[in-house]
Amino acid sequence: MPISLSRLEERLKEMAQIGKNKENGITRLAYTDSDLEARELLSNWIIQIGLDVHIDGVGNIFAKRQGNKNGPVVMIGSHLDTVTNGGAFDGTLGVISALEVLQVLIEDNISDILPVELVVFACEESSRFGCSLVGSKYLTGSLLPEKLETYHDEENTSIISSLQQKGFIYNNTLARTTFIPENVKGFIELHIEQHDTLAKSGLAIGIIENIAAPTRLKIVVTGEAAHSGAAPMFDRKDALAAAAEVILLIEKLGRSEAAAQTVATVTSLKVDPGNMNVIPGTVSMFVDIRSINSFSKKRVLAELKEEIKGICLAREGIKMEINVLSEEEPVNLDKKIIAQIKTACQKIGVPYQFMNSPAGHDCMAMASVVPSGLFFIRNISGVSHNPQEMIDLDDVYIGTQVLYETVRKFSAEGVD
Amino acid sequence: MPISLSRLEERLKEMAQIGKNKENGITRLAYTDSDLEARELLSNWIIQIGLDVHIDGVGNIFAKRQGNKNGPVVMIGSHLDTVTNGGAFDGTLGVISALEVLQVLIEDNISDILPVELVVFACEESSRFGCSLVGSKYLTGSLLPEKLETYHDEENTSIISSLQQKGFIYNNTLARTTFIPENVKGFIELHIEQHDTLAKSGLAIGIIENIAAPTRLKIVVTGEAAHSGAAPMFDRKDALAAAAEVILLIEKLGRSEAAAQTVATVTSLKVDPGNMNVIPGTVSMFVDIRSINSFSKKRVLAELKEEIKGICLAREGIKMEINVLSEEEPVNLDKKIIAQIKTACQKIGVPYQFMNSPAGHDCMAMASVVPSGLFFIRNISGVSHNPQEMIDLDDVYIGTQVLYETVRKFSAEGVD
Repeated sequence: MPISLSRLEERLKEMAQIGKNKENGITRLAYTDSDLEARELLSNWIIQIGLDVHIDGVGNIFAKRQGNKNGPVVMIGSHLDTVTNGGAFDGTLGVISALEVLQVLIEDNISDILPVELVVFACEESSRFGCSLVGSKYLTGSLLPEKLETYHDEENTSIISSLQQKGFIYNNTLARTTFIPENVKGFIELHIEQHDTLAKSGLAIGIIENIAAPTRLKIVVTGEAAHSGAAPMFDRKDALAAAAEVILLIEKLGRSEAAAQTVATVTSLKVDPGNMNVIPGTVSMFVDIRSINSFSKKRVLAELKEEIKGICLAREGIKMEINVLSEEEPVNLDKKIIAQIKTACQKIGVPYQFMNSPAGHDCMAMASVVPSGLFFIRNISGVSHNPQEMIDLDDVYIGTQVLYETVRKFSAEGVD
Repeated sequence: MPISLSRLEERLKEMAQIGKNKENGITRLAYTDSDLEARELLSNWIIQIGLDVHIDGVGNIFAKRQGNKNGPVVMIGSHLDTVTNGGAFDGTLGVISALEVLQVLIEDNISDILPVELVVFACEESSRFGCSLVGSKYLTGSLLPEKLETYHDEENTSIISSLQQKGFIYNNTLARTTFIPENVKGFIELHIEQHDTLAKSGLAIGIIENIAAPTRLKIVVTGEAAHSGAAPMFDRKDALAAAAEVILLIEKLGRSEAAAQTVATVTSLKVDPGNMNVIPGTVSMFVDIRSINSFSKKRVLAELKEEIKGICLAREGIKMEINVLSEEEPVNLDKKIIAQIKTACQKIGVPYQFMNSPAGHDCMAMASVVPSGLFFIRNISGVSHNPQEMIDLDDVYIGTQVLYETVRKFSAEGVD
């Protein structure tokens, strides 16, 4: 049986009904009822193709096809949770394509390959708990139980409480499945592109070489709240005016590192007290710096620290404090898997390009412990985390073919 | 009985307990429980000195001493509401000094003067509803019922609903007391200075000649929300970076008009969506421009409109909309009352200076219908709308003396 486009299409459609709002946006925040409904539907599909469903303590779903050969497993998959008012393909496309690959391997009774396992990572998006890649980081050991316990949603519900509320059996010693990297040959993820690079270059597939990692800052600017009518222009300590210089500085620093594909953004800002008749006394800013080049990120941070001193010198009475909230390392993906995705594209005859991923994916956590690969499918809308996110069905077919060919080759390798 | 400094001090202390937070800041936003508590305390003091309390439909409090002479009333007073985390003297000092003046007139049984009336204006600060001088504007007819109905706080509660929630009997035909300007001889207000002009010049009293008036704007900057990792630096529509240019532009325009004593401030800013991983799509800013020179204010606004076009031209995809929320005219105070305050200072032997008020006061609304005067007491901290706001007790005594002498003279004038 070949890959079935109609089956892919139907499953994507059915999944897109779950968590859908009036504007066709999808909200399936991790561990909420709509997320559970999506996981239930996926579990039913797994059972229908004849596999067992395993769920670990943080909610990662596993479904393994035992090959007729012993040896390490080849893992494929992505996630089903979404941001608030997101699109239908981010994460979901990778899960449904991986399921299709498994189903074809089963239906065609492909022998002489290693075991292949679908994994659906829990809580990939940071939207609910402010922490991304929860399932994949937990599985691979980079998010430890004591750290997991510190994350809470806006209603102050912890990740662990939400797991328990939804019937997951969480226990900080049992939560992780016995994940032994030596027993895993590698991980391959298919994902919709979250920008318009492929759409602009007219190519269906982007093979990822590096994944950018965020450095996140909180900058607190302290001036002095004063009456906005009474304090003369040359005798005030306006925290917001000083913050405005920092916003433009961060934009400038990001632009100066554009060649390294670095981006730097002030994404959020809070003014205190924020009254119509008071000069802002304190401003808190949140900054997101991302790059595939950790030197470039470090340059931005170093320059920022240096130039901020100048702003404070020029504005008497203004103080600034930079808190580094997180500083993650960019990830270089496995060269062998990259080559095998390329070979698959060539075999199918689909044009591709090599590129980097500016956004994080579960593949990033997996790459820290096992050889990992990632490729993008063209996004014809050019936007993601947005109800407008859109894909061409032909590209879904092509992408699933590429995943299938890569998995077949990779799982047959070294098998006698 | 002379003016009692200990009584003034005790009342200031007792009032400063209401709405006090841990850092000794005071929050008595208009028509909230703490504001009502302050009004209750003041009403009790009024009753203790033997006067009746009258409250109109927007919450202005009146207490009149009938002189033994018929004729128009001399009004004195200020307000009790505060900004968020403000100081203990803004408004309150003027109310408590005026109460002291009334009490001394009563205790000394001063005859041959006109009626003197204490007025405590409701909702002077714009902090809660974005509209200042609500009580005094309503009383004097410059804030009409249909306009009053349009103001709401952050929780979308209207001024009228908050009045009704707190038991005020609001009725758009009955709310205003019968305020007939012909029956009012004039209004005199004592207020703490909100900057450090007097402290720097070493003088206790500043006699105000003109009051600056605010022009208030809401500027909405629209860009496009996008993934802060995926959108390259040169292909994004960052509303916050564009807003930062506007903040610095407004500061520059204020500085360029410093000779006209004009000030221009972005006092508050809201970022949407404000998530750590999303480029800001929309920014709303609130701008406060003040001057005693209306031409200078108009120049700032005209320049702002012009230069904003340039920012939008340079940042493709960014749109900005300026909404003028209010545009008030600067006020010249009554020359005769100015002269009488000066005479009072000379009689007491306290050094004074003439100056302008950069901030608005209830006196401004009163001046539109009756002869009005205003004088400042030295602020030793130099800041207001800030928990650090501070006054020297000697100056409280001196200021109350000046108010008393001015009122005595003004209320005896033309009385046979």
